[in-house]
Amino acid sequence: MRNLRLDICYDGTRYRGWQRQPGVENTIQGKLETALSRILEEPIEIYGSGRTDAGVHALHQVASFHCESTMPAEELLAQLRHYLPDDIGILDCKDASPRFHARYNAIRKTYRYRIWNSAEPCVFERRFVTVVEEELDIPAMQAAARHFLGTHDFSSFCNHKSSKKSGNRQIHALNVTQEGNYLDITVTGNGFLRNMVRIIAGTLLEVGQGKRDPDSIPELFEGVRAEAGFLAPAQGLSLVEVDY
Amino acid sequence: MRNLRLDICYDGTRYRGWQRQPGVENTIQGKLETALSRILEEPIEIYGSGRTDAGVHALHQVASFHCESTMPAEELLAQLRHYLPDDIGILDCKDASPRFHARYNAIRKTYRYRIWNSAEPCVFERRFVTVVEEELDIPAMQAAARHFLGTHDFSSFCNHKSSKKSGNRQIHALNVTQEGNYLDITVTGNGFLRNMVRIIAGTLLEVGQGKRDPDSIPELFEGVRAEAGFLAPAQGLSLVEVDY
Repeated sequence: MRNLRLDICYDGTRYRGWQRQPGVENTIQGKLETALSRILEEPIEIYGSGRTDAGVHALHQVASFHCESTMPAEELLAQLRHYLPDDIGILDCKDASPRFHARYNAIRKTYRYRIWNSAEPCVFERRFVTVVEEELDIPAMQAAARHFLGTHDFSSFCNHKSSKKSGNRQIHALNVTQEGNYLDITVTGNGFLRNMVRIIAGTLLEVGQGKRDPDSIPELFEGVRAEAGFLAPAQGLSLVEVDY
Repeated sequence: MRNLRLDICYDGTRYRGWQRQPGVENTIQGKLETALSRILEEPIEIYGSGRTDAGVHALHQVASFHCESTMPAEELLAQLRHYLPDDIGILDCKDASPRFHARYNAIRKTYRYRIWNSAEPCVFERRFVTVVEEELDIPAMQAAARHFLGTHDFSSFCNHKSSKKSGNRQIHALNVTQEGNYLDITVTGNGFLRNMVRIIAGTLLEVGQGKRDPDSIPELFEGVRAEAGFLAPAQGLSLVEVDY
């Protein structure tokens, strides 16, 4: 059977997240599957590189799916762009090797958590940031960020975790960078538990607010969810890249 | 009486333009006057540097108003930011000289008309651009743009014009610049007639599409509205700067 790869971006503001759910209309996966099934005239099920929560965005998400249609990928790309709402964009649509699977083959993902750190208005980017007006101790956040590098049990940075599965994940990079009023927390890892990036962002924000010591991070890997930081709002989070 | 200056930005998407209108709820002026009148507990009427049409944005608009209140400008700024919806931002609020008037003292304004010139999706900036998928002849647009410089009668670049008033306006600069998929038409002038920037943008787009010769511009200044280009959509237009 033919295998196709989709490269996608979306403004997640009005969606209930990536994953199709019974009885829920507005999901990214649902919109894509409906469009693909109508255009190709066969039932299509797609596999994303991973889920994104309700309200989370993607600058670059990857999905794959099988189909019987022989429609050229270029024509499918044009039809998808025509058919989809303007808050879901198709960056690319290509035939992939038969073994390619967007989820199983993903080796690394990068997320960005964007904070508008100012009392000044953020009118034009407001859907893609979390506003924190107070001044933050950025060197402290950067010191705390370094403790996340490497492989740790992130169970305490996860909501709704099944206790049977391993919480071990490897963080390759975690940078806190400031440019103008934007403060970006950019994290690359081999995989992420549910809400993990948002809880890391919330924990780093608490460090920046002076509520936590940067060196208190390591003990959180031995702790429970309640000891880690708050769940930072969805709208500041974007999936930036998936590596294969 | 005290005179104050407001520096404002807004996402015009959901508004019926700048100007307050009887029976129309959603105008920028209306939102600002309602907020100011409640905060200062006196009826406030504001003067903008000029109107913007329904759906047009402002990166930087200026307004002024008189009041009796002695509330410090800084406190008013904070209260306005708290009170206003998140698609209207207050950049600054300051006491101004008693003679300052945002409209009468404006000597120059700059607008940007932004085109997303690609078939690729423009998801995150989609509210602030007009999409033109086809390739445009940008050197031709730049050649046409040069004909607008100087003082001309722009009556044929105006909708709903009162024929009694002069249509003479001076254009100081009109640049067509490309950066990635963005094509910006940036125009600075001493004043603009109703819809003038959008009709200039529409005319330049028709030049870029090969429907008009760049050297056909000068004769439009002698012509009528129907001879100039189409009215480019509001959403691509932003007021960028007002000089005093």
